[in-house]
Amino acid sequence: MKTILVMLRAHADDWVRLLKLGLPNHAVVTDRSAALGPLSYAVVGKPPAGAIAALGRLDALFSVNAGIEALIESNEIPEGLPLVRMVDDGLAAGMLEWVLAETLAWHRNLFYYRSAQHENRWAPLQEKMASERTVSVLGAGHLGLPVAKHLAALGFNTRTWSRSGTAIPGVDSYRGPDGLFACVDGSDMLINLLPLTPETENLLDAALLQRLAPAAVLINGGRGRHLVDEAVIALLDDGHLRAAVLDVFRTEPLPEGHPFWSHPGVFLSPHVAAPTHPDTAVASIVRNIRGFESGLPLRHVVDRKRGY
Amino acid sequence: MKTILVMLRAHADDWVRLLKLGLPNHAVVTDRSAALGPLSYAVVGKPPAGAIAALGRLDALFSVNAGIEALIESNEIPEGLPLVRMVDDGLAAGMLEWVLAETLAWHRNLFYYRSAQHENRWAPLQEKMASERTVSVLGAGHLGLPVAKHLAALGFNTRTWSRSGTAIPGVDSYRGPDGLFACVDGSDMLINLLPLTPETENLLDAALLQRLAPAAVLINGGRGRHLVDEAVIALLDDGHLRAAVLDVFRTEPLPEGHPFWSHPGVFLSPHVAAPTHPDTAVASIVRNIRGFESGLPLRHVVDRKRGY
Repeated sequence: MKTILVMLRAHADDWVRLLKLGLPNHAVVTDRSAALGPLSYAVVGKPPAGAIAALGRLDALFSVNAGIEALIESNEIPEGLPLVRMVDDGLAAGMLEWVLAETLAWHRNLFYYRSAQHENRWAPLQEKMASERTVSVLGAGHLGLPVAKHLAALGFNTRTWSRSGTAIPGVDSYRGPDGLFACVDGSDMLINLLPLTPETENLLDAALLQRLAPAAVLINGGRGRHLVDEAVIALLDDGHLRAAVLDVFRTEPLPEGHPFWSHPGVFLSPHVAAPTHPDTAVASIVRNIRGFESGLPLRHVVDRKRGY
Repeated sequence: MKTILVMLRAHADDWVRLLKLGLPNHAVVTDRSAALGPLSYAVVGKPPAGAIAALGRLDALFSVNAGIEALIESNEIPEGLPLVRMVDDGLAAGMLEWVLAETLAWHRNLFYYRSAQHENRWAPLQEKMASERTVSVLGAGHLGLPVAKHLAALGFNTRTWSRSGTAIPGVDSYRGPDGLFACVDGSDMLINLLPLTPETENLLDAALLQRLAPAAVLINGGRGRHLVDEAVIALLDDGHLRAAVLDVFRTEPLPEGHPFWSHPGVFLSPHVAAPTHPDTAVASIVRNIRGFESGLPLRHVVDRKRGY
């Protein structure tokens, strides 16, 4: 009997229950010492330092998060151990909802009308059509692809930028370092859904954000370290950015006193854009383990060199 | 040469220019006295009392708005004159955007996180999946149909209610007076996109709203007269409704001092959900006139008995 160790601080019981349902012939434990023999798999979020090294040899390590930069940077994952990132339809659906919610809220001026109401002002704006706005999506993978498709279907002029320049019908695709500025030039909204790698860290800096149209809106659903915080503040202050919608931060929770908390152009949420839902996430792991044990290659194994 | 009279207070120049482009062999005027002969068509918004009766015999009267209850109630439109309501893809697209913006903003708690930020609170909620929410759409025509389709595609449990019970794949359809309560029972969000007729006036009353799930959200993109204002306030006060998102009102602009202005559960906008965009709206009228003059029946003629 193969054993799966669940190392999670939140909702571990749900994960154990769902994994047992999906893999009834496996043992599922939450404590290393409860395993009768060696472990085959571990499921981790943000494990404490040293925890992974203590597990011994595994067949695979499953991350419950899409972003795995912290695991890679820990330098605790043995060279030969397959690290599997979370590719989960529930997580992608959550990100799609959140990006659509924010993009449409800004497109249709919901926060403006909220302020007008507080001031007792009946003040209709000339509402633009989606076809009058250009939206650039950074990342065209599991998260960016459905977002770009939906925005294009709603009529936005939609562009994507990715490493490989993934082609999406109805969307202008850009690729590689040379394509980045071309992708964002003159855009009214910039949506970041990139993975965090050495190449993408600090990518959203003053030079890039200045290429956006005046009064553009930045929406960051990627990672805090994609963003140069000071550049965002400076561009909000001079009006080049109208708003920065931020769900992720260099340090989380966002420290007390950070200027993002009180800046009138910053609209923040506490890392809730794309929560991992145990139901769909466990299904993804179960499918992967079943396939692997029947001889198929593991899916969604992180390419350490590429960084995701 | 046939003559079209444009009777609009806002953007009349745009309408004249676009109508001339689309129908180069017609005369287009904004002043009755500028017409050389009898008028064939008039394009109206909310004409002043007596204005339509003064036009003489027309082949058709085109409304620039989807809602035509004010024109019908004016009793100024001769029995035999075809009244054409605006059925415009641009208008329907605008309504779809607005409803998606509001539905997703509430689904993903954007206003909650805005308040939390103002209080310097890092306070993630357990975010629900769309499949954990039930949304009921009243109206399944030109406006309601695309809304219901999109909400279903995003994973919401979606129901529609309409006179005819229009079937929509992936959506539970209800019809007629008997189906109304069944459609809204236990719903987490109620979206009203009905036309205003004697049958639908005051439809959103206490009895109906009480059938919704506790802490439901009401989104009204229809007409102010669909809603019993006092019932909405009472249900917000006792917490049965969490929020009322209102774009339309019995009197517009909403009068100073109306309780909607300051109620913490009311989120209002100044009738901007689905503005008529001259480009797409004129194209709809041009297509209709071209077809009519080549012998086809006029499309979208209001059925006075049905009320839309």
